[in-house]
Amino acid sequence: MATIIAPKEFSPIEDAENIKKACLGWGTDERALISILGHRNANQRKLIGLAYEEVYQEDLIQQLKCELSGDFERAICHWTLDPADRDAVLSNAALKKDVPDYRLIIEIACIGSPEELLAVRRAYRHRYKHSIEEDVAAYTTGDIRKVLLAVVSAYRYDGYEFDTQMADSEAVILHEEIQEKAYNHEELIRILSTRSKAQLKGTFNRYRDIHGTSITKGLLGDPTDHYLAALRTTIRCIRDPLKYYAKVLRTAINTVGTDEDALSRVIITRAEKDLKDIMKIYFKRNNVTLENAIERDTSGDYKAFLLALLGKDEL
Amino acid sequence: MATIIAPKEFSPIEDAENIKKACLGWGTDERALISILGHRNANQRKLIGLAYEEVYQEDLIQQLKCELSGDFERAICHWTLDPADRDAVLSNAALKKDVPDYRLIIEIACIGSPEELLAVRRAYRHRYKHSIEEDVAAYTTGDIRKVLLAVVSAYRYDGYEFDTQMADSEAVILHEEIQEKAYNHEELIRILSTRSKAQLKGTFNRYRDIHGTSITKGLLGDPTDHYLAALRTTIRCIRDPLKYYAKVLRTAINTVGTDEDALSRVIITRAEKDLKDIMKIYFKRNNVTLENAIERDTSGDYKAFLLALLGKDEL
Repeated sequence: MATIIAPKEFSPIEDAENIKKACLGWGTDERALISILGHRNANQRKLIGLAYEEVYQEDLIQQLKCELSGDFERAICHWTLDPADRDAVLSNAALKKDVPDYRLIIEIACIGSPEELLAVRRAYRHRYKHSIEEDVAAYTTGDIRKVLLAVVSAYRYDGYEFDTQMADSEAVILHEEIQEKAYNHEELIRILSTRSKAQLKGTFNRYRDIHGTSITKGLLGDPTDHYLAALRTTIRCIRDPLKYYAKVLRTAINTVGTDEDALSRVIITRAEKDLKDIMKIYFKRNNVTLENAIERDTSGDYKAFLLALLGKDEL
Repeated sequence: MATIIAPKEFSPIEDAENIKKACLGWGTDERALISILGHRNANQRKLIGLAYEEVYQEDLIQQLKCELSGDFERAICHWTLDPADRDAVLSNAALKKDVPDYRLIIEIACIGSPEELLAVRRAYRHRYKHSIEEDVAAYTTGDIRKVLLAVVSAYRYDGYEFDTQMADSEAVILHEEIQEKAYNHEELIRILSTRSKAQLKGTFNRYRDIHGTSITKGLLGDPTDHYLAALRTTIRCIRDPLKYYAKVLRTAINTVGTDEDALSRVIITRAEKDLKDIMKIYFKRNNVTLENAIERDTSGDYKAFLLALLGKDEL
């Protein structure tokens, strides 16, 4: 379930005018921006952006960038973007880091539906005049490149059918490669990147039935081995996205100084989808609610904005 | 330019009725089928199929399959399919051959626009409950699998921009791998499968400028090496699809006994697109028109049907 609270009735023009008002004069009225944009769904934000452009001949995101700064600026700008375009922007930034953030790429490639991934690829091409796989190939190397290229190019079958015989035989293939520590053998990547999610969940379950241990356990090893970590991330994103996101939030919050990029990303990308469910899992594992953790670890407008997306306005 | 001649005005119901009439009674009136279906474009054929289903509660393709046989049956059924669905059917058949026909897969992956390839992938998933990349991975192995998976999963940028510096540097990378006969190095596949076609054409031209020879020449070698042949096919399909198709036609016609599958495929898939241009290239290279070659090498309804698609009805 979603967390954001958006009104059914709203006026894009009025919102655009109020945003403009909040930006005019000395200083910006950040709280006004939060009270508007923090309570509009993707479609409503899109209409506001169009209205803003129409009335003021200015790009809303550019305007926000000029007025704001820091984590709050990044968060509210990402939030205001169209979801597929936002994922394209996040992917591009992740690739251009000194050490590319392969987790984010896998997350975008493996959690959304096949059609959602296509929409991101389309948005990426439109914005950067490159395909996403082109940039993945250019910014990464070695085994990690193989797995990233495979998952980002996938257009999986998304039916619910599941072939038990195939699950059995592929559980065996996976186990063999893992036993031999032949992680970079092609079969592992082939299976993880081409099979449907329903099929893979079946295969992961058969793996556990046959071998008495989860497949991710078999892929533990040197903690600095990014390739193994990428395989584990792929499996986790397919097996249980909610649990995966709860873990990303936990790591982001427990990082010294907080990893605001990761924190914002999960909240922004899931607030309209399943953040309520992720919050439940977070609470179960950490004995503290996500709201409390955010209240403790963040501050100012950034905090107020995240809480608004969580459906918990500060008043 | 297209070759088929389709009327602007037509009635799907009337066509469906006439097709039914041609199928009723003893024997089938193949010439009537040709005179209808051989003169309808993709959209018209779709409407006829819908009308047929509506009026007779029967699938038009199934009906044709029951009535006809041999090369003519295969050709007219493929022709009647929606183009993306037809490419999905052709790909699936190509993969399931004893020796998978990698050329057809590359052709479909590299010649259509990125959106056309997506439509084929979507049709494939819908029809076979598997993604095309899943079946490519399952039915092929080794280096050829790498190149097929990469091109079939691509969603290339399709703008006309072209980066001269990148063309220079990638021409050098390609030449190095080719010189060292390190064909299966990742760079070659990465460049061929991720860069936009405009960029690749630029890179191939720079390759020729710098090294005085075409890139495909560097990839000649053992004629039984399917992997090298796949790389050459990829390059040819990107560099000059018309010339590529003219070559496929030449080979199909020159094969002892004629390769009807390849002959039908090119004519059916290009009759509504650019077959007229392919025919010009064919004539230039072979000193015989494609019509004459077909008249000499084929017979019966199959011949009549191919000629109808070429815009040359036998009367």
